[in-house]
Parts: sequence; structure tokens; C-alpha cells
Amino acid sequence: MPFSALPRRVEIVEVGPRDGWQNLPDFIATNRKIALVNSLAGCGFREIEVSSFVSPRAIPQLRDAAAVFAGLQRSPAVTFAALVPNERGLAQAAAAGVDKAVFFISASETHNRENLGRSIGESLADFAAMMARLPAGMAVRASISNVFGCPFEGEVPIERVIWLLGKLRGLGIEEITLCDTWGVATPSQVYRVVCQVRDAGAEVDLGLHLHDTCGRALAGVMAGMQAGIRRFDAALGGLGGCPFAPGAAGNLATEDLAACLAAMDVATGIDLAALRRTLDELRQVVPAAASHMAAFWDGCRH
Amino acid sequence: MPFSALPRRVEIVEVGPRDGWQNLPDFIATNRKIALVNSLAGCGFREIEVSSFVSPRAIPQLRDAAAVFAGLQRSPAVTFAALVPNERGLAQAAAAGVDKAVFFISASETHNRENLGRSIGESLADFAAMMARLPAGMAVRASISNVFGCPFEGEVPIERVIWLLGKLRGLGIEEITLCDTWGVATPSQVYRVVCQVRDAGAEVDLGLHLHDTCGRALAGVMAGMQAGIRRFDAALGGLGGCPFAPGAAGNLATEDLAACLAAMDVATGIDLAALRRTLDELRQVVPAAASHMAAFWDGCRH
Repeated sequence: MPFSALPRRVEIVEVGPRDGWQNLPDFIATNRKIALVNSLAGCGFREIEVSSFVSPRAIPQLRDAAAVFAGLQRSPAVTFAALVPNERGLAQAAAAGVDKAVFFISASETHNRENLGRSIGESLADFAAMMARLPAGMAVRASISNVFGCPFEGEVPIERVIWLLGKLRGLGIEEITLCDTWGVATPSQVYRVVCQVRDAGAEVDLGLHLHDTCGRALAGVMAGMQAGIRRFDAALGGLGGCPFAPGAAGNLATEDLAACLAAMDVATGIDLAALRRTLDELRQVVPAAASHMAAFWDGCRH
Repeated sequence: MPFSALPRRVEIVEVGPRDGWQNLPDFIATNRKIALVNSLAGCGFREIEVSSFVSPRAIPQLRDAAAVFAGLQRSPAVTFAALVPNERGLAQAAAAGVDKAVFFISASETHNRENLGRSIGESLADFAAMMARLPAGMAVRASISNVFGCPFEGEVPIERVIWLLGKLRGLGIEEITLCDTWGVATPSQVYRVVCQVRDAGAEVDLGLHLHDTCGRALAGVMAGMQAGIRRFDAALGGLGGCPFAPGAAGNLATEDLAACLAAMDVATGIDLAALRRTLDELRQVVPAAASHMAAFWDGCRH
């Protein structure tokens, strides 16, 4: 009975403030960002991706990363992470007191060039330089984009994913997230890819980041759980999308995942009532935030 | 590896014209209904729920059930089904040439009374009378609502579902669909309920009808497939909802399910290109029709 073998506890990493907000056209005021991230921290997440230390021209929405970090109510229970694209970003992240740096690379050469402006080999060289300068006490995670398909290249060979995992592991990166940036992964594909990665002997702490473009993200989480994954990214209100992945819609909505896991008696540490209040707070600022649970909860108010 | 044990073929029953349209506020002209159902028949569905032979006052949208059936291009490859609530409806369905009558009953006494205006016992007595008058050649399916939870009663005991299945089986009804009318079933619950029903020895042809209220319907289908279910209801454009189930949103969108199964190499017999054209046709008539695949396909047009 596969569903009795599910993990009893999984971790939801809230990536909304970074991945969910980065492409929103209207700038969210820094004090509102701070208030929202502090509210999220009060919901019981163990980790939140707060912002990106990228060029303000590349992602204007996140140009206030340092200011947001300065306003956070720190707690030893919550890891505040940020995307760090290069050595310059790493220095800024260190100055801002970022707990964990998130490195990004794509399993698709074309997508890596479109999204990051460099080859996969160049990205790996950057990571090596960044690992050499990693401040003491700063944790690292690497996210691999387009593991499950690429709008430019189509299917991505599993061999390339396994090769990339080996390279990252060789750089000392032990926490890695496989991302379905386009949002096309089927549940059976998620299960197969995770098993293939495991079978290849990659001794890494694996997580999944699934976009809900085709409505399959929650089903993919269930498949990932059945394959033994215990860490999943999600974004409050299902916000997100990728400008370099045509047709890609938002992230899996945190509240849809958290409510489902709670109903399945899978522990996440998340306080659903607090999450619902934070969702209401987010919707005051970003009316586009929406999800199945948002509509369900709205319906139940009547 | 549970995902390698999935069925190689599953059947999607298109229930949009009945369950998806019944609560739409604007009447769809009969000739448009006929054109849409004929288009659906051309997509490769083996069965379509076309309409309901209920009181025109109860569901004004489906008051033209007989006229719609009169306009269908019949094919031996497609079963045209209709909801039949009582003996009068059965006589009308017989006159209209309905291939399969669908009986409805709820696993929740309160919901049965709210939705059907009678007790579960009275509904079973009606079914007995209808089975005694079933026209030669007309097939029957029973759908059990609220199997996975009820907005009025909360959790529905599995014993009541199994008892109801036994009663229906005793009436000679061999095809039964378990419905999550409220749309709250978790994947693990779907798996557990199907296994419990099977373990109870119910020798019936079981299907699942999952609403997407909480965004779990596709994950529920995957769980159902892992439990051996091979027949699933879905509605084009994700239309639907239940006026007697507060907060209940639409059905699982046929195109989301069909596209996911196609990507998993699970055969459904559905021509995705024809389905996409029919979805475009539906959206001309019902702008509210929407789904993840609708948005994805729209995005890919740019």
C-alpha cells in the first residue's frame, strides 16, 4: 500500500517572496515585504526564500533585498535564504546576514544561457569561486532548473541531471532542489527521475520545486513523497512564473499543499490558521494571489 | 515502484454537458449544446453524460435534454448517458433514446435530503422501481455523492459507503461511481477508501468522480489509478460545482487529466488536438471554461 509508506513529516520551503514575487509588475513596498515575510515566519516555516541578490536591472522587484533582510525578525527556528547569482551577490548576501545562499543552474544549456547569460560550464566555475568565498556559517543550496523538460530543448536527458548533481556534489553542495521550471512534469516522471537520481548514487539532500503550469504540481509532490522526497518548495497564493519559460504559470500554492498534507496527517509544522491570515495579508498587497484553498476558504466565509 | 504498476489504459467519462453546465446562469442554446456534444463525441470519449431528465424547474439549464438527444450524431463507439432521478425521468430518457441512465444517491443522509429531497431509503426504493422498469438495452450506472466528506455532516463513515454499495449491487447495479462532490478528498484518502471498498468484497465496476475544489483532483486520480481504478469522470473546461455543497468548485478539467495521462503514456483514446479545438468551441459559448491546460495552450500560442 504505497500511501501508507509516505513520510510522516515533510518540509515546505516558502519561496513566494523570491520566486513568487520577482516578476510582479508593481513594486511591493519594502515595509510590506518585510511585514509579509515576518508573518510567514510566524506560520511555522523552517525556511523562507526572502529575495535575490541579483542586478536591480534584471529583477527590479527584488532590488531591496538588503533592506528586506535588515527588517526581518530573526529567529533561530527560521532559515532566511536568498538567491545569489555570483560573487558580488554573495558579498552582498553576507553583508545582509543571509542564512543560506541559493545557487541557480539549469539542466538545459539553452535555458541556462537565456536565464543566466552563461553556459552551464561557466555557471559551475562561478559556483566553485563562490564556494571558495562562502562566509563561515552560511549554508548553501543549489537549484537545478528545467530538470523535467525545457520549453527550448524539450526533454532533458536524465544523464545530464545526474552529471550536474555529481558536479555540484563535487563542489561541496549537499542540498539540491530539482526544479520543474516549466511546470510540465507528470507524477510518473517525478517518481522515475527521483528514483533514477537515487539509483545513480547521488548522496544529496534532494528537494523538489514544481510549478503548477499544467495543474500537476500537487500530484507531483505526492509522487515525490512516494519516492522518498521530504522537502518541497511552494509559494503562498501560487504566485510565480518564469519570463524565460513561455507558458509557465505559477508555483504550487503553499496553502493548497499545506492544507492537503494536514488533511493527510503529514506534519509540516505549519499553522494553517496563521497561513490563512498571511494569505489574506498577501492578497491585500497582491490581488493576483489565488489558489484553490483561497477560493474554498472564501466560499466557506459565506 | 508503484508508478510502474499504473493501468496502461483508463477511461475518461466526459460529464461536462451534465455536471459542468447544469448550474451555468446563462442558458446555452440547444443547437450549441448539440454541436458541443457532437464535437466531444469526435474526441474519442467512449461515454458522455449529455444531460439530466430532471424537473425543468430544478435545473432550467438542462430543460432541453430530449431535444439535445434528438440532435446527437449517434455512433456505436459512444455511450450517451443522462441523469435520471425517478420513474418519470426514466420514461423520458427511454423515449429520447438514452444509452445509459445514471442514478444519483448520496452517502450523506443530509445531503441526500438537501439535493434530492428524499431519504437514502426512499432513493433506494425509487431505484428498485426504476430497475424494474428499465427499458431493454438501457445500461445503468449509480453515482454515490459525498463519499469522501460532506459539507453538512463532515466525515462520512466508510461503513455507510460499503452498505450503500451492497444495496445498489443487490438491485442489479454493477457500475458505480464514488463521488467527491465537495472536492476535499486527499490522495491518501482516495487510495484508502478504494482499498476498503475492494476489501469489503464489493464486486462492482468502480469509477471516481473528483471535484477540484481544493486542487487535489488530479492527485486523487493518480491515487485511484494506483488503487486500480480505471474510470474517471471529468468535465471540459473544469466547469461545475454543486449548489448544495457550499464552497464546492468545478470538476477536474478533462483537458488537464487527458494531457497528463497522455504525457504518462497512459492510453485514453482521446485525441488531444480535437479536445483542444472542442475546448476553444466551448470557451466561445462559456467564457468561464478554464483550466491549467487552457492557460498553457493559450500561452504557447504567443
